[in-house]
Amino acid sequence: MLKLYTSPGACSQATHIALEEAGADYQAIRVNFAAAEQRSPDYLKLNPKGRVPALVTTQGTLTETPALLLYVAQTHPAAKLAPLEDPFALAQLQAFNAFLCATVHVNHAHRRRAERWSDDAAAQATMQAKTAQNVRDNFRLIEQDYLKGEWVMGTAFSVADPYLFTLAGWLGGHGIDLGEYPKVKAHFERMGARPAVQKVLAWQKAAG
Amino acid sequence: MLKLYTSPGACSQATHIALEEAGADYQAIRVNFAAAEQRSPDYLKLNPKGRVPALVTTQGTLTETPALLLYVAQTHPAAKLAPLEDPFALAQLQAFNAFLCATVHVNHAHRRRAERWSDDAAAQATMQAKTAQNVRDNFRLIEQDYLKGEWVMGTAFSVADPYLFTLAGWLGGHGIDLGEYPKVKAHFERMGARPAVQKVLAWQKAAG
Repeated sequence: MLKLYTSPGACSQATHIALEEAGADYQAIRVNFAAAEQRSPDYLKLNPKGRVPALVTTQGTLTETPALLLYVAQTHPAAKLAPLEDPFALAQLQAFNAFLCATVHVNHAHRRRAERWSDDAAAQATMQAKTAQNVRDNFRLIEQDYLKGEWVMGTAFSVADPYLFTLAGWLGGHGIDLGEYPKVKAHFERMGARPAVQKVLAWQKAAG
Repeated sequence: MLKLYTSPGACSQATHIALEEAGADYQAIRVNFAAAEQRSPDYLKLNPKGRVPALVTTQGTLTETPALLLYVAQTHPAAKLAPLEDPFALAQLQAFNAFLCATVHVNHAHRRRAERWSDDAAAQATMQAKTAQNVRDNFRLIEQDYLKGEWVMGTAFSVADPYLFTLAGWLGGHGIDLGEYPKVKAHFERMGARPAVQKVLAWQKAAG
């Protein structure tokens, strides 16, 4: 059985939803950020980076959302969560996930994790002040150029969808109204109606 | 024929080397950062993100290094540049590439691209001052936990190797001696001896 280490609302939510959509045999384990469990010696043994998600498999532990999303898709081919046999389409999917991971998530993190990049409180405040603008620029690009249809990849649901859903859920924290991006908003509502998503959100609520 | 838009020494070097290792039919086109060509209207039409790499294929343009690396591996299977049929090993490869993309490259960028995250010059200086420490933390993790053998994945050369080679090449710019990481240093030298790498470095030198 797979074990997903996750924190409610964190980017690990994307992999959690993907596992649920895949019908995977898995268990979700809450990492309590409020208690800094992600930096506890036990967790660091599992994932030396001290972050979520981490996915424990019978072969070992895997990390990094884009890697986990493709892993879930590849190990559950019947769920058709990625265009595995179409290198161009798969590269588009991967490019979307890489953009969320390395640009959108990173920009987002400059609000609450500014201390990663500066030890100076005044400097951190200037980074926090710029976060919403950067995140807006990213979502404008997603709205205009990268959300291809009903789902990220067009007509086919894929592992990119729970990832976009997760990061779109962070917009409110930056004071950004999801309604600024009508296509992203419609995607968010479409995702919220899926049983797999509702199950994960209910688990998160219960996990606290 | 594939067309790779690249800037000498930028992260696009990884895809350039991967194309060369794959024996791909491609052309490299220099994007002149000094002339801000990456933000010219023509280039933005190609890649609205205004970054390198961009890979133009007969089906359209692809972006983001981890996506391009897997694309090159998947479209040139004879070169065996990724464990395409082993989901766990592929996820390890992808996790390594995601770490380079979203953590190591991002930390690196806080030195010369600090204006992305703060408009304040004094704040930018504090970010630049912390860059070397963050990059050191990342390379310590690579040295201790992620470089599995002669190559990133152990005995098999893969697309992760040109990516590590490229980012290891940036250490000097942070005042970090590659010798702090003996395994990374040996990997760097091993890479430098490969004909494909020498060909790409010679092209970069000639391209200016």
